[in-house]
Amino acid sequence: MDQILVNDRGLQYGDGVFETIKLIQGKPLLWPAHLARLEQGCNRLGIPFDGLFDRIATDVGKILAGSLWSVAILKLVVTRGAGERGYKPNKEASPTLIVSLSDYLPNESWSQDGVEVRFCRTALGINPLLSGIKHLNRLEQVLARSEWDDSTIAEGIMLDIEGNLIEGTMSNLFWVHDHSLFTPELDRCGIVGTVRQQLIKLAGQSGIPVVEGRFSSEVLKQAEEVFVCNSAIDICPVIKLAETEWPIGPITRQMQAQLKEVYAC
Amino acid sequence: MDQILVNDRGLQYGDGVFETIKLIQGKPLLWPAHLARLEQGCNRLGIPFDGLFDRIATDVGKILAGSLWSVAILKLVVTRGAGERGYKPNKEASPTLIVSLSDYLPNESWSQDGVEVRFCRTALGINPLLSGIKHLNRLEQVLARSEWDDSTIAEGIMLDIEGNLIEGTMSNLFWVHDHSLFTPELDRCGIVGTVRQQLIKLAGQSGIPVVEGRFSSEVLKQAEEVFVCNSAIDICPVIKLAETEWPIGPITRQMQAQLKEVYAC
Repeated sequence: MDQILVNDRGLQYGDGVFETIKLIQGKPLLWPAHLARLEQGCNRLGIPFDGLFDRIATDVGKILAGSLWSVAILKLVVTRGAGERGYKPNKEASPTLIVSLSDYLPNESWSQDGVEVRFCRTALGINPLLSGIKHLNRLEQVLARSEWDDSTIAEGIMLDIEGNLIEGTMSNLFWVHDHSLFTPELDRCGIVGTVRQQLIKLAGQSGIPVVEGRFSSEVLKQAEEVFVCNSAIDICPVIKLAETEWPIGPITRQMQAQLKEVYAC
Repeated sequence: MDQILVNDRGLQYGDGVFETIKLIQGKPLLWPAHLARLEQGCNRLGIPFDGLFDRIATDVGKILAGSLWSVAILKLVVTRGAGERGYKPNKEASPTLIVSLSDYLPNESWSQDGVEVRFCRTALGINPLLSGIKHLNRLEQVLARSEWDDSTIAEGIMLDIEGNLIEGTMSNLFWVHDHSLFTPELDRCGIVGTVRQQLIKLAGQSGIPVVEGRFSSEVLKQAEEVFVCNSAIDICPVIKLAETEWPIGPITRQMQAQLKEVYAC
């Protein structure tokens, strides 16, 4: 599907959710986690999910059959479907499913040598009702990502409007301090990333304490290691942010190795 | 245009703005105000507006030429245009303009006899960067409008996450107390409605003091008159909200009459 109806509520109101999934040799990574988040997002928005797993399986099967890329990004978008004018959802509407596939060239140096990131001025609004899920209302990320053109800056770190660290424009944020792994709590804004959740699980299995909480950006100055992660870039060590620099540390490397093992299974 | 590309950023991220304009006998009401807000929204989001006035004039002219409806709603959607995967806007992209027209049957009893409204549980997140403009990230309104099915309830009143009165799901809110007109300040969330702005101007011309500020829902209990307004429903007196009832008062009627005069010009 190349086009959708202009009265689709995905366009009219951002009334839907999406997933971005990496495929290696045609195998979608963390597939169950992505599907689970998609379903959770639909549930939160009241978009009926019945039958969507079957439609996704069929459409993904078709699109993968024609693909020759060794690494690719699969994007799934589910909207509430077409509708009349007005915010009220039509309960009879059938959700729209859009499946697309694009080539992806991993930047090995990002995960090997680390990346420089910056702070964004664009702050994330606070709204628990919409936090965590990967919905289509993403203007905050668009504005944040518009703040810089310099291609040596890989990512921008976003705070909420109260000054708490939250995430990158397209990634989740972790840091290491005193042998523990820290990451911002995402109960009031932010997207709960599938790689983030996988890392929290892996850290737990390795006996590394994980602390989710509200932290100001000052805590990063005391961190021994910092990294960002998402489904496309995996884990990228952060080596510089504003005036602070970090080495690429052992826990970052351990997490990278553990994630690679999960992917290989 | 019935369809748009699935990679349009309006769908992918809600990266755009819209306007809903009432036409009476083919004449768009408050047309300059709607165009000004559209341009302001594009400026805020960094969507280039050059040439859009001409495109709008051409497309609106075409769609109106085929219309026989005495009252209709014209909807304009402007998105940043099609794009590659990723939040970063492509500066070469050309904005997408979607113009649609739908029949509209005004509910005369709403403006004459008043409406019953309710409070919504869905709260508005706070983000000054996106407040005021009519952007396409409207999940909060969708969730709020999903809260009720009862067709005797015309509108839902939304508070922000700190409990301040903000607006209706599709309208702005006013109330009268001690001969002054009150309405919530919209610097942190909410949409600055064209009718709202017109009424503030009209009240000023009539010597009615207008107070914009942050108010809890408790203030409505002391109000002598309450009304909601937007471009489609004009001014609708609120006669009941939760346990409180109001008569339709003189200032509401005066505002209705003054707005009608503006429309007739």
